[in-house]
Amino acid sequence: MLYLTRIETFNAAHKLFNPELSDLENDEIYGICANKNWHGHNYELYVTIKGKVNPKTGFIFDLKKLSQFIQMHVIKKYDHKNLNLDVPTLQNILCSTENIALAIWNDLEIHLPEGVKLHAIKLYETNKNYVEYYGE
Amino acid sequence: MLYLTRIETFNAAHKLFNPELSDLENDEIYGICANKNWHGHNYELYVTIKGKVNPKTGFIFDLKKLSQFIQMHVIKKYDHKNLNLDVPTLQNILCSTENIALAIWNDLEIHLPEGVKLHAIKLYETNKNYVEYYGE
Amino acid sequence: MLYLTRIETFNAAHKLFNPELSDLENDEIYGICANKNWHGHNYELYVTIKGKVNPKTGFIFDLKKLSQFIQMHVIKKYDHKNLNLDVPTLQNILCSTENIALAIWNDLEIHLPEGVKLHAIKLYETNKNYVEYYGE
Amino acid sequence: MLYLTRIETFNAAHKLFNPELSDLENDEIYGICANKNWHGHNYELYVTIKGKVNPKTGFIFDLKKLSQFIQMHVIKKYDHKNLNLDVPTLQNILCSTENIALAIWNDLEIHLPEGVKLHAIKLYETNKNYVEYYGE
Amino acid sequence: MLYLTRIETFNAAHKLFNPELSDLENDEIYGICANKNWHGHNYELYVTIKGKVNPKTGFIFDLKKLSQFIQMHVIKKYDHKNLNLDVPTLQNILCSTENIALAIWNDLEIHLPEGVKLHAIKLYETNKNYVEYYGE
Amino acid sequence: MLYLTRIETFNAAHKLFNPELSDLENDEIYGICANKNWHGHNYELYVTIKGKVNPKTGFIFDLKKLSQFIQMHVIKKYDHKNLNLDVPTLQNILCSTENIALAIWNDLEIHLPEGVKLHAIKLYETNKNYVEYYGE
Repeated sequence: MLYLTRIETFNAAHKLFNPELSDLENDEIYGICANKNWHGHNYELYVTIKGKVNPKTGFIFDLKKLSQFIQMHVIKKYDHKNLNLDVPTLQNILCSTENIALAIWNDLEIHLPEGVKLHAIKLYETNKNYVEYYGE
Repeated sequence: MLYLTRIETFNAAHKLFNPELSDLENDEIYGICANKNWHGHNYELYVTIKGKVNPKTGFIFDLKKLSQFIQMHVIKKYDHKNLNLDVPTLQNILCSTENIALAIWNDLEIHLPEGVKLHAIKLYETNKNYVEYYGE
Repeated sequence: MLYLTRIETFNAAHKLFNPELSDLENDEIYGICANKNWHGHNYELYVTIKGKVNPKTGFIFDLKKLSQFIQMHVIKKYDHKNLNLDVPTLQNILCSTENIALAIWNDLEIHLPEGVKLHAIKLYETNKNYVEYYGE
Repeated sequence: MLYLTRIETFNAAHKLFNPELSDLENDEIYGICANKNWHGHNYELYVTIKGKVNPKTGFIFDLKKLSQFIQMHVIKKYDHKNLNLDVPTLQNILCSTENIALAIWNDLEIHLPEGVKLHAIKLYETNKNYVEYYGE
Repeated sequence: MLYLTRIETFNAAHKLFNPELSDLENDEIYGICANKNWHGHNYELYVTIKGKVNPKTGFIFDLKKLSQFIQMHVIKKYDHKNLNLDVPTLQNILCSTENIALAIWNDLEIHLPEGVKLHAIKLYETNKNYVEYYGE
Repeated sequence: MLYLTRIETFNAAHKLFNPELSDLENDEIYGICANKNWHGHNYELYVTIKGKVNPKTGFIFDLKKLSQFIQMHVIKKYDHKNLNLDVPTLQNILCSTENIALAIWNDLEIHLPEGVKLHAIKLYETNKNYVEYYGE
């Protein structure tokens, strides 16, 4: 079993705000991340799949196709967008890095090409923090 | 003459949109960067000052004070903000990396501590592009 | 289960020297790392916690509080220090990256906020080598 | 149990080409990577070993010896070489990152010093993709 | 005057070999870089242009067009190629980083869009060495 | 005229302390950097030379020889040392990044091989600050 990782990026606006809480509570929990006019990040996404080497190609899966798959199901929907307003799978969800990683896992999982097994998502919000999810 | 550089970061939302142009023209010029609901970046700012070594301290200027100076006059005003809406010195200005760099230069230049000479601003918008300005 | 990682840094002096061995043996084992006048590093520390998303906040744990927790229990004690002489939890311990990582794990583990589970410590000594510890 | 990782690099030429397939099939599978005149990469290799801390040294294993071990059994054979033509353990093998990682695992595994357990190989081909192998 | 830099990459094979010298002399000058079966690199190219901000767009020059310009005149011709054999502007030239940088400057200079001034080329061969050229 | 840069690193202990000042003044100026038991850094050194391409070799100067030159005259004297105590050219000098950069310039300048012109020294103390010196 080998693990193949592809790294892609998207640049997006978001804010952290729970509409079921008061403005004061939002401020206490989220601080400057709750700025009503949004802020943003260069998100860096690591997608790891696992499998055995195909003896005909030498690949677990074609890297170019993996990149196109991530582009189609994540980057096109998240890049240069407002995560809270523009991304269908993030509607009514708190746009924390944790929840964005979970949404990206689902975006990829339901469209996986035959024979590809998703192993992990790693999502950097800044170069000082990231979230990992392994599907369970 | 030596050159001392400090690197600070800010995370902000913005969009590229010229209100004097039609939506179609904005789309042609800015593409996805004109998304009306904003997008965002982790901006990385390099501030370079120049001077001679003070024989008493060994410093051109105290690095901690340089960091605090950038924090006070740039980071506090730009970080976790919407550059188009929230930053006073960017009002009525197209929020390109070029214009943000020019605004930051001015934010710093007018508050420079005595004896400090600003040499350069370098502003990364993503890890694939940046703008430099030397004040002239 | 998700994994959240925060990266912090500290700059410290140390040497590798076993007082129970002769100078010659220390030289053979540690080479230039045994320099009696010390040397030093910019250590880069990755702290990973694990948990489920709190539906009220969208967080496993507040990233700002995680950073403050690492600052309080590690960075304040290790940063701009001599690891062999100044850090209480490293006294009478060989200051290898392995042992520093174990000490940091313990520094964090005994002070963990309620509900937080420590998953991993990764400690870079230079950009060419690091140690990982998972608590077992 | 701790994990110690050393990072080394090698610069090599290769191409992706399966001699049992037609030129057309090679083009379809490998695209520009099948260029008959070769292309190349700066490969970045992470080698992770695991073990307990030796109380006499503070080490799982001496980092300098780990580096020399990787130099001797991988870097000297792969660096500034043509992977397809010059590396004995890659002969008659499709030179994908997956297969190179497997070959490196074997190059190291059969020469491991006594008491050292190989845990993982991570091999970056570019800064946007890498392969990991854990020996099973 | 502002400076705008775009970073692009290409992965290529090459060797350092002067056909007017003996094999022994080539070995003495180039060592392992003269390996007759080639080696290769992930080259990282910084292209810097200079100009004034266009008040209509906020740009010195459109970054997407700058990227496409570099792709068309450099990356398509250099990426996944053998620099010695496949790149027209490097024929009969010693493929040192210095000469590759000079060739790239010329590739760009003769096709510059109207109003764009090329300021600098920086070319990384590995993450430990690079060459810069300013056109004079 | 081209510019060739080589990057080398050294890991060293130091402290910032002016013996002509009182402890209180040292604390005010240097804060935690004055810790009497030292701290340390992974210094990253960029050495840039300039020249014309030698038509016989394609080089300004042989990169391997440039690396050896920096190793011999800087790295061997600074790496795994205490900068204040162990480095001859830093005796009785305040060990700020500014003064270390000046000392390195001199260490290199007086030993320059014939025909090599030193253009710049860039010295990173951490990944957030560096000093540059151009010899005048």
